[in-house]
Amino acid sequence: MSTKYQHIREAAWEGNMQLPELGLVLFTFGNVSAADHDLGVFAIKPSGVPYKNLSAKDMVVVDFEGNTVDGKLRPSSDTLTHAVLYKHWKKINGIVHTHSTYATAWAQTQLDIPVYGTTHADHTTADIPCAPPMSDDMIKGNYEYETGFQIMNALQERNLSYEDVEMILVGNHAPFTWGATPAKAVYNSAVLESIAQMAYITQQVRPDAPRLKEALIKKHFERKHGPDAYYGQ
Amino acid sequence: MSTKYQHIREAAWEGNMQLPELGLVLFTFGNVSAADHDLGVFAIKPSGVPYKNLSAKDMVVVDFEGNTVDGKLRPSSDTLTHAVLYKHWKKINGIVHTHSTYATAWAQTQLDIPVYGTTHADHTTADIPCAPPMSDDMIKGNYEYETGFQIMNALQERNLSYEDVEMILVGNHAPFTWGATPAKAVYNSAVLESIAQMAYITQQVRPDAPRLKEALIKKHFERKHGPDAYYGQ
Amino acid sequence: MSTKYQHIREAAWEGNMQLPELGLVLFTFGNVSAADHDLGVFAIKPSGVPYKNLSAKDMVVVDFEGNTVDGKLRPSSDTLTHAVLYKHWKKINGIVHTHSTYATAWAQTQLDIPVYGTTHADHTTADIPCAPPMSDDMIKGNYEYETGFQIMNALQERNLSYEDVEMILVGNHAPFTWGATPAKAVYNSAVLESIAQMAYITQQVRPDAPRLKEALIKKHFERKHGPDAYYGQ
Amino acid sequence: MSTKYQHIREAAWEGNMQLPELGLVLFTFGNVSAADHDLGVFAIKPSGVPYKNLSAKDMVVVDFEGNTVDGKLRPSSDTLTHAVLYKHWKKINGIVHTHSTYATAWAQTQLDIPVYGTTHADHTTADIPCAPPMSDDMIKGNYEYETGFQIMNALQERNLSYEDVEMILVGNHAPFTWGATPAKAVYNSAVLESIAQMAYITQQVRPDAPRLKEALIKKHFERKHGPDAYYGQ
Repeated sequence: MSTKYQHIREAAWEGNMQLPELGLVLFTFGNVSAADHDLGVFAIKPSGVPYKNLSAKDMVVVDFEGNTVDGKLRPSSDTLTHAVLYKHWKKINGIVHTHSTYATAWAQTQLDIPVYGTTHADHTTADIPCAPPMSDDMIKGNYEYETGFQIMNALQERNLSYEDVEMILVGNHAPFTWGATPAKAVYNSAVLESIAQMAYITQQVRPDAPRLKEALIKKHFERKHGPDAYYGQ
Repeated sequence: MSTKYQHIREAAWEGNMQLPELGLVLFTFGNVSAADHDLGVFAIKPSGVPYKNLSAKDMVVVDFEGNTVDGKLRPSSDTLTHAVLYKHWKKINGIVHTHSTYATAWAQTQLDIPVYGTTHADHTTADIPCAPPMSDDMIKGNYEYETGFQIMNALQERNLSYEDVEMILVGNHAPFTWGATPAKAVYNSAVLESIAQMAYITQQVRPDAPRLKEALIKKHFERKHGPDAYYGQ
Repeated sequence: MSTKYQHIREAAWEGNMQLPELGLVLFTFGNVSAADHDLGVFAIKPSGVPYKNLSAKDMVVVDFEGNTVDGKLRPSSDTLTHAVLYKHWKKINGIVHTHSTYATAWAQTQLDIPVYGTTHADHTTADIPCAPPMSDDMIKGNYEYETGFQIMNALQERNLSYEDVEMILVGNHAPFTWGATPAKAVYNSAVLESIAQMAYITQQVRPDAPRLKEALIKKHFERKHGPDAYYGQ
Repeated sequence: MSTKYQHIREAAWEGNMQLPELGLVLFTFGNVSAADHDLGVFAIKPSGVPYKNLSAKDMVVVDFEGNTVDGKLRPSSDTLTHAVLYKHWKKINGIVHTHSTYATAWAQTQLDIPVYGTTHADHTTADIPCAPPMSDDMIKGNYEYETGFQIMNALQERNLSYEDVEMILVGNHAPFTWGATPAKAVYNSAVLESIAQMAYITQQVRPDAPRLKEALIKKHFERKHGPDAYYGQ
């Protein structure tokens, strides 16, 4: 096993181990990958191996076409989705897929999550997009590969870039999140689950709850992300 | 106590101990059994003994007619249901019964759980059946024995085999799951609870949420279970 | 401090310590008492003392009129409710009051919890009664004393004895449970919380969910409690 | 670092560490401050530092105008809201802000939380106010400073003092709570989350659930807080 992939193997492993700690996965229903764009590869969780048996060396190294480059196990069945996104999005180094309860339930509704409050606006000014289910032809074709394009198309249709919103629901399936680092992508998965749960409760208490007003969406996002951001150290 | 049942006693005990860890039982509201079809018997949790006091030797060994073969304690009050299913279903070696919150609440609605997403389709292409409550005559007769037939009938009416779907709701009662091993049956109980919770939230957010399209149901099930499955190692 | 109350002090303390473990209380929002009918007294949690600081010796011993007999601290503010129930119900030796989430939310609806399934019928054949809020005169009078009568009246109006149903909701307030032992009363509080949560989910999924049929109510209760009970050892 | 602020640094740190223990925060989405009115300053959590890395010495000391007086890190982005409230409310020494799930979801509805039961009335006789979203001008101005006035105005409009009700929802944002000590303010945050969850469930089960009757509101509040209070030691 090559040592030159050690850094992404460890980052992917650490990310994967956080998922059960954050309550985002049941059994093996999730995967985290860590990319190195200079090497043109990413490390990802092997398919169907219980978290408690995982170690960093089990992470499978794959190129951006989805070919295994290093590692003995079969990579996650969602590997091609990760590959497509890394190939097209140069600035992300981490992707996370989970079946977390509230985000997955929203994905099953095929509806975007409206921005109802500042918890949401702290992270993105957009509603969380829900990509529609694929056409039957795409499903019968290269399914996981097409899922990547389904995600990119959903952003494009809303005039959003992957830097504007780092989380998405894949209709009838479940959430994907990403970020500059695997740790940021994991953070985004936990944030999305919390946003999804709060939006659900908000709608139950008040079905016609108004979206957050534009001035507040802008204000909260810029507190954390604008050129004059004043959140964090 | 005969040593020839040690393997099923240990498998049943391990399965039972997983139920509280997975958050599937309150107190003793559940039971796991482990069968050996060659010996024609299964080991099952004794009735009403707290999980913390259980050890493998307490598991009661029963034949497929429900007669105790080995063990000092009274077997679970649901023993006859397990016996009927093992007698008719040759390929299963584990059965689990719980009163897990969301699956039990669904059973109380007497409705099947629609397949809303891939978390569900990864495990079965069918809606999760809810067997109707028994006739009064059956209830007054051999209740737990008839519960086994109620389960088999519900599958038959939907043209499903016990290999197509390894989980069911018994109307107004609670879920039963099964599998090739006791561990698989326990896994199925946790999966069912998660599917039931997600379906509940999905319906609350969007009462007319569409069922998963056929092509996706097929695709996801075959990723994990078809002849060309590519999930797992 | 008299040693003759040691047994009820320890039973009350053990019961109180179980409440946070079972997730039934936030801070000090609950109390367990343990009675000795021969001595004509019960031990109860002192008012407003955090669980982590409690020890058995802090339990206050009170007679069935509510007079402190032994102990340095002020007893729970709900003490008179316990006293009234012990005075009138000779066969119970434990009472529990909590503000557990789902049972308390149901109490706030002023509705009985319908018997929707066997989890409920395993414990009582009746809907869980919700006692109506008191008249203003009773509230301004001896409030906690009247709460005891409010509970007894609610049972009487439904032709139920305290042995038929060991749990009740006090409208707009919260649940009370009881039993032959303090441990059984604590068990009943956890069961009630689970029944309340399941009934809530059942109603959300299917607002017109049918009550459990009479034959099943009877069957499940008799499995555990009738003269031919076959649950437990 | 000056030692004269050690007591408020420790109180603020202890309060902050309780938030994750009580399940009130995800990551760093909350802050606790501790004031000393004689010194005219308060200690508050630094912005965006994970809880596990915090120690008392990291707390930033700020005056009631929001100027940093002692400490190396940047204070919480919500610091000016705390400053305004301490400046105007002489009797409080602790303020807590969280994004706890149910309270935040209610804030997103822009609705007050009705007093449905005694759990609520034990703490305040008023509905929990929800301050409306600010005007666009206020948002573009000194946002966190204005949030403090938004909170004070919402109380004033309801003829409530900060001693009548120690908790509020800021519309589309999240809850703030306060108290005579930082520990009391943290306690109030946990109580508010519980009240919000119960009110949500109550409304789901019975959309026209009646408010608690006046006599009971008064009785329960006075049990704990009136001149003849008999709760606690």
